[in-house]
Amino acid sequence: MPRTSSLPPSPGPVHPGPDAHVALRPAVAEVTDGFWHSRRDVNARTSIPQGPGLLESAGNLHNLRLAAGAAEGEFQGAYPFVDTDVYKWLEAAAWQLAQGPSARLESDVHRIVSLVAAAQQPDGYLNTWFQLVKGGERYQDLRWGHELYCAGHLIQAAVAHHRATGRTELLDVARRFADHVDSVFGPPGSGKAIDGIDGHPEIETALVELYRETGERRYLDLAGYFVDRHGHGLLGGEAYCQDRVPVREATNVEGHAVRQLYLLAAVADLATETGEAELRSAAERLWRAMTTTKTHITGGLGAHHDWEDFGDPYELPNERAYCETCAAIASVQWSWRMALLTGEARYSDLIERTLFNGFLAGVSLDGESWLYVNPLQVRDGHTDPGGDQSARRTRWFRCACCPPNVMRLLAGLEHYLATSDDDGLQIHQYASGRYISGPVAVRAETDYPWHGTIALAVEDTPADRPWTLSLRIPQWCRHFRVRCGDETYDSPVVEDGWLRLERTWAPGDRVVLELALEPRLTAADPRVDAVRGCVAIERGPLVFCLEQVDHPGGGLDDIVLDTTRPLAVKHRPDLLGGVTTVVAAGRRRAVPDAGWWPYTTADRAPRQDGDPVELTAIPYYAWANRQDGAMRVWLPTS
Amino acid sequence: MPRTSSLPPSPGPVHPGPDAHVALRPAVAEVTDGFWHSRRDVNARTSIPQGPGLLESAGNLHNLRLAAGAAEGEFQGAYPFVDTDVYKWLEAAAWQLAQGPSARLESDVHRIVSLVAAAQQPDGYLNTWFQLVKGGERYQDLRWGHELYCAGHLIQAAVAHHRATGRTELLDVARRFADHVDSVFGPPGSGKAIDGIDGHPEIETALVELYRETGERRYLDLAGYFVDRHGHGLLGGEAYCQDRVPVREATNVEGHAVRQLYLLAAVADLATETGEAELRSAAERLWRAMTTTKTHITGGLGAHHDWEDFGDPYELPNERAYCETCAAIASVQWSWRMALLTGEARYSDLIERTLFNGFLAGVSLDGESWLYVNPLQVRDGHTDPGGDQSARRTRWFRCACCPPNVMRLLAGLEHYLATSDDDGLQIHQYASGRYISGPVAVRAETDYPWHGTIALAVEDTPADRPWTLSLRIPQWCRHFRVRCGDETYDSPVVEDGWLRLERTWAPGDRVVLELALEPRLTAADPRVDAVRGCVAIERGPLVFCLEQVDHPGGGLDDIVLDTTRPLAVKHRPDLLGGVTTVVAAGRRRAVPDAGWWPYTTADRAPRQDGDPVELTAIPYYAWANRQDGAMRVWLPTS
Repeated sequence: MPRTSSLPPSPGPVHPGPDAHVALRPAVAEVTDGFWHSRRDVNARTSIPQGPGLLESAGNLHNLRLAAGAAEGEFQGAYPFVDTDVYKWLEAAAWQLAQGPSARLESDVHRIVSLVAAAQQPDGYLNTWFQLVKGGERYQDLRWGHELYCAGHLIQAAVAHHRATGRTELLDVARRFADHVDSVFGPPGSGKAIDGIDGHPEIETALVELYRETGERRYLDLAGYFVDRHGHGLLGGEAYCQDRVPVREATNVEGHAVRQLYLLAAVADLATETGEAELRSAAERLWRAMTTTKTHITGGLGAHHDWEDFGDPYELPNERAYCETCAAIASVQWSWRMALLTGEARYSDLIERTLFNGFLAGVSLDGESWLYVNPLQVRDGHTDPGGDQSARRTRWFRCACCPPNVMRLLAGLEHYLATSDDDGLQIHQYASGRYISGPVAVRAETDYPWHGTIALAVEDTPADRPWTLSLRIPQWCRHFRVRCGDETYDSPVVEDGWLRLERTWAPGDRVVLELALEPRLTAADPRVDAVRGCVAIERGPLVFCLEQVDHPGGGLDDIVLDTTRPLAVKHRPDLLGGVTTVVAAGRRRAVPDAGWWPYTTADRAPRQDGDPVELTAIPYYAWANRQDGAMRVWLPTS
Repeated sequence: MPRTSSLPPSPGPVHPGPDAHVALRPAVAEVTDGFWHSRRDVNARTSIPQGPGLLESAGNLHNLRLAAGAAEGEFQGAYPFVDTDVYKWLEAAAWQLAQGPSARLESDVHRIVSLVAAAQQPDGYLNTWFQLVKGGERYQDLRWGHELYCAGHLIQAAVAHHRATGRTELLDVARRFADHVDSVFGPPGSGKAIDGIDGHPEIETALVELYRETGERRYLDLAGYFVDRHGHGLLGGEAYCQDRVPVREATNVEGHAVRQLYLLAAVADLATETGEAELRSAAERLWRAMTTTKTHITGGLGAHHDWEDFGDPYELPNERAYCETCAAIASVQWSWRMALLTGEARYSDLIERTLFNGFLAGVSLDGESWLYVNPLQVRDGHTDPGGDQSARRTRWFRCACCPPNVMRLLAGLEHYLATSDDDGLQIHQYASGRYISGPVAVRAETDYPWHGTIALAVEDTPADRPWTLSLRIPQWCRHFRVRCGDETYDSPVVEDGWLRLERTWAPGDRVVLELALEPRLTAADPRVDAVRGCVAIERGPLVFCLEQVDHPGGGLDDIVLDTTRPLAVKHRPDLLGGVTTVVAAGRRRAVPDAGWWPYTTADRAPRQDGDPVELTAIPYYAWANRQDGAMRVWLPTS
């Protein structure tokens, strides 16, 4: 479904304003083949088209009809934020429409946008739960009510719809709601009725985007007001609601992971638009604290099921990793803003890791079922609780925040791949297709991440002046080669993650980047207690795991990896839609029966010899697509 | 507060009926000195006397007054089971009164028993939440309502009150409620209105005790009915409510830990009274599955904060260990019933471990503050959530189930120390005082667990026939000596945990048991991923831990234990009320700054040398009695 026109695509979901203090500006890519194309194709052909039916079954559209006075019955759904499932689907559909026309999708979007517009109240307010269940009692429960969170997703959808299609119906609805919010919320002394914030950030970053789309400065100011008022006890001072400490003073990410990350995306947005050094410094400090102490190897975020919380530094459990799919998405959104703001490649390093692992595991290979939480281990003998937090894929959730969130990121993914600045074009993520910025266009062909060769060809270029083609050399990469014309360079100098090739380019010039993709064993900082004595198998940007189905004859929790034997790479076109596996040597630990007590004086600890077993590691993103069973990412080495 | 009379004490909280199928019958001990005496003294002088004031402040007594029509106002408290705090306190006070008279305590008990009686409805029903908040709408929400759970604790308190004091006021209340329950609940076809179970087991074991106290067989039958109906989907089939699988078919403990354990105490009770082999076999199977796969080294139970759940086999996290204090208590109650039923020493091995570690950590040294959850680690940089699940001691809880539960177990502890059978007396737990059964009395003097010498002297004995003094040789013990008269035996043969000394004893005969108490390093089954590469320090029955306050100059998560250097024992009368510490050699790992990403190719993993540091390990039960800070039980060895 890629469009083939050579028109520059629509600006993406992050579109810094004209006075933005950014190092880089987004450039758009066309993804026409390869890994991400096939994932996006499933999204376009299966996930997004199934959305309206699922939103109908779950009652979300019914609620809008009720609010519009166009149906009768009871509100359906368990949460006050069910409208956002609709808004996120609309955003996904909008980015999808930007890829090319689809009569059915356009019709679905039109129908649902009309429903949303009809459900809106005359003064701009819109929330079906409060309109239908709470008798219109607004803004009385900012901690749990999610009214501004819903407004935020409505605004994001509207911006996407306008950017992608040029249509204004949904943008008009969003502006009316934003104007209403602006008329109600403000600091003490502003004459506004409420000095408050929403328990779930989202409106902040949405309002910045609305400012960018409309040029109305008061939306940016309102976003700044909301960000500033977090951490001052307006919601009881709870970390869960991002209200324990003002963001400028915070030293680490904390509380509900998705709330923290959406708020920090807005912090990056505000630093981008206002140039405020203190906000930028807070965002940089918190991003580094997060990656250093609270990020799973998959890019997954959130250590606690309880309160969906980040947990303590280096508290990174495997079987109880929460790693909500939405947190991975929020991380990508925040990191992308940081990449634009700073120009630093590490933000895109994390985006790559997150996209290929912690994010992509959230959707099944067929695009029809989902994971809300993304554990790094399922134990032998696991008793699954079912429900939203199941370690088994689910068709839809009671709290269905993740599926349409995946849809919108996949549909808009081409907006996160490249940037430009006055010096040229930067390629952040490698995919087959085209990278375009102004007069520059570069075509890419690659079978990444299965193979490390990325062949680039300059298609369009200004003839008369040099510019720099910057290629991100991934943080995981130990060795690479680049061929530029007739010259080959072996692991040349990389500046902060960027390989910079400055030339006066001509159409047809070719650059071939070869990233060495040997599989590797990765160990964690020793403060990550949960994985002491273990390693993970990685290859390129992919984290691998073992699944029970590939290892009959015993459980996974008895497997020990033999690190003295080489890892072998085996491409398996038959398996899981075609994946490269890593084959390793291991053994099944033989634990003598120690009786009823599993703790033994250390010098009497049982010997751990056992039978050799060939281990087949699959990419983590592809787990839980066959039969139920154990899984593990981190493998004991003794 | 020990009584000095030589009358045999009252029968304890587990009092098998005349036809019970038990291997052992409870004998009672008098604890007059030493470790447990001092803990019980704090319980008697501080914790129990403060109870009525706390129950007043929290509103529990106010609710009873409201239900009795003796006050006006609103129901206070957040849960439908707040009455149980009162009942558990009454049970504690009853066992305390059995130790000796106290005018103030008797007056408090009399006043509160009168309140309970006055709050009871004419037909026997009693639950202040449902009477006051739910308009008397009974038994409509068995999953969450806790009405039968409350009835169970009322019955337990009444049995204790009657056994300890001979008074019948509370027993009459309990019987009326039990009769009411019996008139309402029963199997299909019984003509009873409801075929149902309570979401929180407790009434089952209480009804068995009521049968034992009154001789009324129908209470036993009702208990059997409730046990049998678990696992048949009456409550939606949830493991949380012990409704996923019938207990006779279950293969491991699961769901909410305390609910599971209270139910299994009743299973042991029923097997005891009915002799049913299948129930006994289920209880034995589940106990072994629990200890082998789901028990922390402290005896703590429950791996998940979420739903207070047992978790999967070998899922035994440290920082997120739940290990509710009530679960430790329930484990002791279940294991004691198993010890009586089977005569096997391992049940008392677990009781000892649990009492000295997972249970005792639940109350502060001064008896005034509490832990609801008992983690095995508090991380450097821990952000404490506060509230009931805090890793910091709390004066009282919103859900105050644990404090009065600790009070009742400590007040009745002498009932869990010894048994008798036709062959003689068995000493399960060592404490200074007397062990008494029929014509046999043995005096004990010991400074256990600080020292391993237990000096026993026969005080009373039948003159004309031999009997066996059985001493439990703890499962942790690698070497011991016993002196009996003039003979000394070096680690003589132990039968399934029992050292059996058969003699024709004479008053004044002495036995000295010396348990070697060298400190030891303990490793876990390798399937316990959370502690791979770590050991725990133990000495005797005590598990040790490091606290931040003893280790200035850096965090605890960087400490590595040097296992090549000897452990030293240092008694510190000045510290924490007098404890023996274990001093070990360690170093502070020097982790080079790895940049923003904490995962490194394994062969590049940072070296871990560091400065030497002397480690002072304190008994786990005494942690969190000084300043807030990190703590860890399991220590990395590299």
